[in-house]
Amino acid sequence: MIAIDWGSSSLRAFRLDARGEVIDARRSGEGALGAAGRFAAILAPMLDGWDEPLVAMAGMVGSRQGWREVAYVECPAGLDEIAAGMVGLSAPELVGRELWIVPGLSVRGDDGVHDVMRGEETQICGLLDRLGPGRHLACLAGTHCKHVWIEDGRIRRFATSMTGELFHVLSEHSLLGRLMEAGPHDDDAFAQGLDYAVGEGDLTRQLFAVRTHGLFGVLAPQALRSFLSGLLIGHELRQLPERALVHLVAAPALMQPYRVALERRGGRVREHDETVGARGLYALARARGLLRN
Amino acid sequence: MIAIDWGSSSLRAFRLDARGEVIDARRSGEGALGAAGRFAAILAPMLDGWDEPLVAMAGMVGSRQGWREVAYVECPAGLDEIAAGMVGLSAPELVGRELWIVPGLSVRGDDGVHDVMRGEETQICGLLDRLGPGRHLACLAGTHCKHVWIEDGRIRRFATSMTGELFHVLSEHSLLGRLMEAGPHDDDAFAQGLDYAVGEGDLTRQLFAVRTHGLFGVLAPQALRSFLSGLLIGHELRQLPERALVHLVAAPALMQPYRVALERRGGRVREHDETVGARGLYALARARGLLRN
Repeated sequence: MIAIDWGSSSLRAFRLDARGEVIDARRSGEGALGAAGRFAAILAPMLDGWDEPLVAMAGMVGSRQGWREVAYVECPAGLDEIAAGMVGLSAPELVGRELWIVPGLSVRGDDGVHDVMRGEETQICGLLDRLGPGRHLACLAGTHCKHVWIEDGRIRRFATSMTGELFHVLSEHSLLGRLMEAGPHDDDAFAQGLDYAVGEGDLTRQLFAVRTHGLFGVLAPQALRSFLSGLLIGHELRQLPERALVHLVAAPALMQPYRVALERRGGRVREHDETVGARGLYALARARGLLRN
Repeated sequence: MIAIDWGSSSLRAFRLDARGEVIDARRSGEGALGAAGRFAAILAPMLDGWDEPLVAMAGMVGSRQGWREVAYVECPAGLDEIAAGMVGLSAPELVGRELWIVPGLSVRGDDGVHDVMRGEETQICGLLDRLGPGRHLACLAGTHCKHVWIEDGRIRRFATSMTGELFHVLSEHSLLGRLMEAGPHDDDAFAQGLDYAVGEGDLTRQLFAVRTHGLFGVLAPQALRSFLSGLLIGHELRQLPERALVHLVAAPALMQPYRVALERRGGRVREHDETVGARGLYALARARGLLRN
């Protein structure tokens, strides 16, 4: 089968063998935002030469601004509930393909506030057989990080932190960016940011240290981005129990900083690369009965 | 004398009588950022017809990117220490004027982190005679809000929260702005934001509620900005003691929201409009011995 991760700003396609292992991969910058009316036309050439009829898709492709809106499935939910919410579609440009979109998840917290994900649920589905029964905690790093509580193969609840987006808008559009200069990731400055976040201070106040550390020469201009990154990730992780085992799903650039941040809190980390999303689409296709073997 | 508040993005001039009362005011959009090499040329026409020779200035005009860099005075500091740090200058375009720039303040917290202000110290100086001896707490609302602890006429310490700037960058440049529509200040949504901020949640996570409240129709698109405003101001104020008397200095548009936010925490509020800055420059000029009467 073919597994598609179609997010806001990028499209990734994975060709899987009969056991669900990735045997080929392609990538495009044609994200689901801005693809209105062109979804099939964008997808067709991405699949060229891959003969598998079954194509399962996850991510913003299933949102209101996507190809077809697929209703959120409410937590708690496991493979069966998510698979039951999958929606099939067809397109003249893709004759002979069997197209499916996976639903996102919603949850309502004890405080009545909703949360949502689209795409990350598929990564969790790819982890479930590795986790087994019992309680587990996963952290999916990214623009909008997701903390996910899993119990006996089902997603109980989750929470979104806007860490990556805050880092971007503050670096690019706020006063904090003025003193920053480009540079490699700075381990010491990142750790200083993490440690500063551990205190009781509120983020609205602590952010100003990025400026004064620059003004007073506490950090070099090239180190300020790493300090900001540590401060934001430190705040995000305040909400997780210390010393827990955390299953970390991250792109290569975020894997090491998040591992450092989690371990500095006394936690243990098990790393999973982003191909767990393709594994999840395979597991969902099987649960839905779309795979013959 | 003439009192000048010359910030990053605007210039305000006040003509004061012999007792320090404002008798005329002018305003320009020529902020200190971008005025390099033109400070005297911008100021000269602003003073046309105002014959008082003494001109005292505060704000970013005294920063490294300003007209003349004036070194920060370290806290604790009162009128005398700040007045002693004032720097005189002259300019051929302003013959017959006696020009002075007030220093900003710096402070180093127990955690070793620095904080700074430029311009707000002058507002505090304008409050001091109203406050009298003892301990007092002031909140100066704005792009970068300042919480100031005053004791026996001296500024002991202060802390900056980036509330206003966070509101701006998140509304204009993040995903949260996508669902927002223009509308008047919404008291209920603002209060919901305040109440949500009271909990234990971290801001990196709570921000996402701005999006889901829009997605799930909990709030109308026109109310989302007020909810975000309440959430950010609520986080800022977490750091102040509850039930305190707070001296609030704010522009008209921020006065009512901050009053509501402080009173909702059980606090009492005394309001001061932004002309306290002009009063402060008068008090500093007197402390420096620049006024004859």
